[in-house]
Amino acid sequence: MARTINITIINPITGNIRLSKPQIDRLCRPGVSITEAPVTAGPPSIESRVDGAMAVPGMIATALQAERDGAHALVIGCMSDPGLDALREAVAIPVIGLAQTSMATAATLAHSFAFVTVLNRVVPILRDNASQCGFERHYAGCRALDIPVLEIHSRAPEEVQDRLGRLSLELVEQAGAGAIILGCGALLGCADDIQEYLAARGVLVPVIDPLPTAVAFAVTLVEQGLSHSRISYPQFQMKPYTGYGFVGGMHG
Amino acid sequence: MARTINITIINPITGNIRLSKPQIDRLCRPGVSITEAPVTAGPPSIESRVDGAMAVPGMIATALQAERDGAHALVIGCMSDPGLDALREAVAIPVIGLAQTSMATAATLAHSFAFVTVLNRVVPILRDNASQCGFERHYAGCRALDIPVLEIHSRAPEEVQDRLGRLSLELVEQAGAGAIILGCGALLGCADDIQEYLAARGVLVPVIDPLPTAVAFAVTLVEQGLSHSRISYPQFQMKPYTGYGFVGGMHG
Amino acid sequence: MARTINITIINPITGNIRLSKPQIDRLCRPGVSITEAPVTAGPPSIESRVDGAMAVPGMIATALQAERDGAHALVIGCMSDPGLDALREAVAIPVIGLAQTSMATAATLAHSFAFVTVLNRVVPILRDNASQCGFERHYAGCRALDIPVLEIHSRAPEEVQDRLGRLSLELVEQAGAGAIILGCGALLGCADDIQEYLAARGVLVPVIDPLPTAVAFAVTLVEQGLSHSRISYPQFQMKPYTGYGFVGGMHG
Amino acid sequence: MARTINITIINPITGNIRLSKPQIDRLCRPGVSITEAPVTAGPPSIESRVDGAMAVPGMIATALQAERDGAHALVIGCMSDPGLDALREAVAIPVIGLAQTSMATAATLAHSFAFVTVLNRVVPILRDNASQCGFERHYAGCRALDIPVLEIHSRAPEEVQDRLGRLSLELVEQAGAGAIILGCGALLGCADDIQEYLAARGVLVPVIDPLPTAVAFAVTLVEQGLSHSRISYPQFQMKPYTGYGFVGGMHG
Amino acid sequence: MARTINITIINPITGNIRLSKPQIDRLCRPGVSITEAPVTAGPPSIESRVDGAMAVPGMIATALQAERDGAHALVIGCMSDPGLDALREAVAIPVIGLAQTSMATAATLAHSFAFVTVLNRVVPILRDNASQCGFERHYAGCRALDIPVLEIHSRAPEEVQDRLGRLSLELVEQAGAGAIILGCGALLGCADDIQEYLAARGVLVPVIDPLPTAVAFAVTLVEQGLSHSRISYPQFQMKPYTGYGFVGGMHG
Amino acid sequence: MARTINITIINPITGNIRLSKPQIDRLCRPGVSITEAPVTAGPPSIESRVDGAMAVPGMIATALQAERDGAHALVIGCMSDPGLDALREAVAIPVIGLAQTSMATAATLAHSFAFVTVLNRVVPILRDNASQCGFERHYAGCRALDIPVLEIHSRAPEEVQDRLGRLSLELVEQAGAGAIILGCGALLGCADDIQEYLAARGVLVPVIDPLPTAVAFAVTLVEQGLSHSRISYPQFQMKPYTGYGFVGGMHG
Repeated sequence: MARTINITIINPITGNIRLSKPQIDRLCRPGVSITEAPVTAGPPSIESRVDGAMAVPGMIATALQAERDGAHALVIGCMSDPGLDALREAVAIPVIGLAQTSMATAATLAHSFAFVTVLNRVVPILRDNASQCGFERHYAGCRALDIPVLEIHSRAPEEVQDRLGRLSLELVEQAGAGAIILGCGALLGCADDIQEYLAARGVLVPVIDPLPTAVAFAVTLVEQGLSHSRISYPQFQMKPYTGYGFVGGMHG
Repeated sequence: MARTINITIINPITGNIRLSKPQIDRLCRPGVSITEAPVTAGPPSIESRVDGAMAVPGMIATALQAERDGAHALVIGCMSDPGLDALREAVAIPVIGLAQTSMATAATLAHSFAFVTVLNRVVPILRDNASQCGFERHYAGCRALDIPVLEIHSRAPEEVQDRLGRLSLELVEQAGAGAIILGCGALLGCADDIQEYLAARGVLVPVIDPLPTAVAFAVTLVEQGLSHSRISYPQFQMKPYTGYGFVGGMHG
Repeated sequence: MARTINITIINPITGNIRLSKPQIDRLCRPGVSITEAPVTAGPPSIESRVDGAMAVPGMIATALQAERDGAHALVIGCMSDPGLDALREAVAIPVIGLAQTSMATAATLAHSFAFVTVLNRVVPILRDNASQCGFERHYAGCRALDIPVLEIHSRAPEEVQDRLGRLSLELVEQAGAGAIILGCGALLGCADDIQEYLAARGVLVPVIDPLPTAVAFAVTLVEQGLSHSRISYPQFQMKPYTGYGFVGGMHG
Repeated sequence: MARTINITIINPITGNIRLSKPQIDRLCRPGVSITEAPVTAGPPSIESRVDGAMAVPGMIATALQAERDGAHALVIGCMSDPGLDALREAVAIPVIGLAQTSMATAATLAHSFAFVTVLNRVVPILRDNASQCGFERHYAGCRALDIPVLEIHSRAPEEVQDRLGRLSLELVEQAGAGAIILGCGALLGCADDIQEYLAARGVLVPVIDPLPTAVAFAVTLVEQGLSHSRISYPQFQMKPYTGYGFVGGMHG
Repeated sequence: MARTINITIINPITGNIRLSKPQIDRLCRPGVSITEAPVTAGPPSIESRVDGAMAVPGMIATALQAERDGAHALVIGCMSDPGLDALREAVAIPVIGLAQTSMATAATLAHSFAFVTVLNRVVPILRDNASQCGFERHYAGCRALDIPVLEIHSRAPEEVQDRLGRLSLELVEQAGAGAIILGCGALLGCADDIQEYLAARGVLVPVIDPLPTAVAFAVTLVEQGLSHSRISYPQFQMKPYTGYGFVGGMHG
Repeated sequence: MARTINITIINPITGNIRLSKPQIDRLCRPGVSITEAPVTAGPPSIESRVDGAMAVPGMIATALQAERDGAHALVIGCMSDPGLDALREAVAIPVIGLAQTSMATAATLAHSFAFVTVLNRVVPILRDNASQCGFERHYAGCRALDIPVLEIHSRAPEEVQDRLGRLSLELVEQAGAGAIILGCGALLGCADDIQEYLAARGVLVPVIDPLPTAVAFAVTLVEQGLSHSRISYPQFQMKPYTGYGFVGGMHG
């Protein structure tokens, strides 16, 4: 196990939202190297299923390149898990979805879970993803800050944290949630504060930050020599895809 | 209801497999006009989830254009329903998936259903789609001819029909299927023969041909003034998608 | 397709509520003929499962007669789908239930649905039907006007429409419904107004009128040569049923 | 508890199959009186859903009369539970279904159950009933003797018992059943022999005879002062049902 | 049936809460003998899963002894069904759980059920038990008096009854429960009063008292010669368990 | 993250089967310390639910002591997850079950999974655990070597590996499993060989070794500051448990 484990986080958007050096450092552990791989085609941000669909071709190209470049596992850096099934057909190394992994973790620690997120718009996407991953029984709800993603960073952090805490408390007390999952990448790093907000009110529930949870799961899979099943995700056959100049590298 | 109802079948592949004039004529009814709309980007055929994902951006562009051009409903011309959710966000007119509609029809007529298809490779895709559409309880199995799609037309039609009939009979007698769904567009038009093959052996089950079933459902929705729910599929916001020259029309 | 498709709507009640000529005309399309077939025995109206059960023997007689008379498909004219399974055993032509078809349609267009109906009394009947048809996951609730059926037509239509609109809005906003189904035949024709009421408040959800939806589905099945599965609904054997003078015709 | 508990078994058929005196005696316990109540209208036997539907109006009349006559609970004497929901609306005393009660008992004693029955024809009826009662997860299958009901008594009992034993063994070993339920009233009294047949082969599973199990459950409900919920089964309102001379007594 | 049926209620706690003579008498019927068997090791009361786990070894010893002493069936006297699976492996005679039996009964009489209990603390235990027994679809909720168990008997009985009635009414009207189950042994005997409280307010739902319901079910199983399935609960093999002096009798 | 993470594996049996030094070393990673904690009371091995139940009191004592001694997370070292719920009530640090974690992992990587295990006897235990953890939809079966556990090490390793490989292949090809889970602690370390056996036959599925997977998950939870939900697993209250001398330490 002396080798370094290379985890590539596929950033599916073309906007300039990138993980900072400290954010990446916090994801690392000894023997693990984290790279964020950009897409050369795709949406500026993902706030709809259309945005998600527009991200996948670029992600496939990035995933194929990352595997060629020696990545040991891929993490899809978006809470709607865009392209999860397709990427698993595309590469042999493990491909991890933030939402799927977070929901599996939450369902292991509590009888139910709920999401806090930024935009009301994504509620049906998260709910459907819960249902399609087999967690409809565990899904207790989703509440949104209803602040535009780009505005979040212009708000006072205490205000955002306080609202996240209150939404989470409502989800526990009114919707019966037993765990909370951060439902948007923009909330990266907020889990501890919410967990403390709730604990200060006597509510001891896990608050799951999807990215570090998914990265750790990816490392575990690599260490264990595990990947997704080829029975469930048969290997795809490359074809000449028309109109995707940016994925030319796929054909090489 | 004197107006003509325009149904656009989105052909998600760039290969030269197109509906023939007689095939389109058989789909028509008085007052209904059927158009097959091509994509300008995408895969030559769809045999994997990667292929499906590579089709969706082009399909979104085609869908937006078709809606602007006066289509009253869209039918996605592929049994894996690629982009169904995204297209519903993209347009206000009804978007119909072959698999979803066929499974809903089958589950209405029988306690369970099964697919016959061409390639073994797509079995997990059809099974997962059944599960994600909420039909895991009705799904009884899927068996494949295991003939390359392009070879089908070089085989004697009787041989293909006979093998389809036998697979269907096995699905009824061994897997307990109460209905059969054609699981590949290349089988368009085979349903009646299979139904007769089975009936000749005393097995009276519906054999569903997805494309005409979906077109008829699309017409019904238009006539009834129904479309998908914006609660479930909120309208997307157009954004500048990088790298998709072919969807330039989207921005106009 | 030059032949006329004959759809028979079985009216399961002996009361004098019949479809009007304009109502039938609105259900028709070119090449389709709609007949409403009465029962010679049964309840004056259906407001309970007992009423439903008292309707079925007469409906079986009517269904057998309609099939002999050349009907190509039958639609059961009651939202509790009385006798759906039995009629499918009795005849070979398709038998369509209003509730089953509406729920399948709604579940195809939205992640969940709810009913608006007239009487509180039928709420458990509709809910159980949803569950028994396999839609318990999609069922979001049922709210009733709580006006006696016979009084509806003495109320100002605007008042009824307004209350239907408000109930529907509550079902969307409070119960999370993604689609609305009219849960009583007395509401025939109200779907458009409710859909507009909701749309005027920014809520774009399909409101399904079961009768036209079911008639259109019946036509589709006839056109496609489809009927219910004999694996799921084996053909019944006629027997001498004691005490049913009115079904004497069954024995002929 | 000095009063006698009167249990009425509603025999839904007009044929001359009646419980014998010894059969009734075996169902009795101290303080319990068992009556078999005939219907004055209905089918000669129940082998289809049509037969079941033709039985229910007569059963409603019989049920209402039995309640007026002082019955404390009703048991529906047919494995397809015809009219269970309607009868619960009709009377306030408990109404017990053989299949529902047997399946609830089996699901309490084993992780799954299967039926042995007489006719292949009823397999879909029993399977659907399992599903509609919420036991689809427990249902492991159904196998039939495939002997006409009326012929059973002309066969050597050892032959019938032996075939029942073998079918049950197959259901345990091949279909994974953890319990067996007798799926036809004609098998009344065969449970012990099947249980012994299996035990002699090292297979210790409960074999449930529905009628005595249901009678005992009915007695328990009466003793406990329990009946079905009026929230789930609201009381019906009597109406003038046309064409049912035989239920004239209903109107008195 | 002249023999006496011996039912042993295993009291899993070491505290001095025992059934009174009148309570046991009310459980008896002619030909039935009820014994309450204590454990020699275990918790003073069961208010947590830890308490439940600490009860099971002693219960196994008691169960083995009771079977040797001629018991025909065992009832586990605690609403969390501690050790139900293990005891079924340990003995061949039927082992009945209060919660499992009550939920099966409630699900037979109503479309859903809810619990009223004493401590908020046990809500997740009852909810999880409902889910694990396959009743998650029927579970409508659980509300607690939130009075310490030992204080209950020092409160005015009318006050307790009134609060139980109000909680039950809320569960029906707000949570949609169709039946109520008493969720704590300390409430033994309260079912009739709650049922009357609800009936006086026009709400006719069964209120199930688990202990008498379970005892009656145990008697029924003995009379029918039924027990749990050895396919589902294979017989255990006795081993030398270290540290359980009190179960020395197990080895004899 | 400079601190060492202490993971305690609770060995629930009193037999002398302990993890070897190399086995523990393979579980370790930099910054992680693994301890195996014995119980002072319990069964010599766990092959039944009785054995499991006899293990839990001792495990609770060990868990409380381990938490006091500075453990950061506990792993229950047995594939039937004995005491998982109770231990989560007992301690605040994460408690991980081998089966629950393995099934959550498998369900994330494949559409279904199956177990290979040693004894036929435990098949119902693993199947029920799958069902109770919410994975009944993913459970594809369980096949056993049917060799006594203690004999395994006396057999030629190649023979055991070969049989494990063949059983796994059958589970994939006949039962449709998409992943394999080792269903017995005695198989620790066999996953790689089975995975290679299958890969050599063209079957690429993950084979999950529960212990290292669970240890890695435990480390992840500690790193993320996550534990089980107190909403789902409320903290227990210590009581004077009679007869458990060995858990005297609990009272200190």
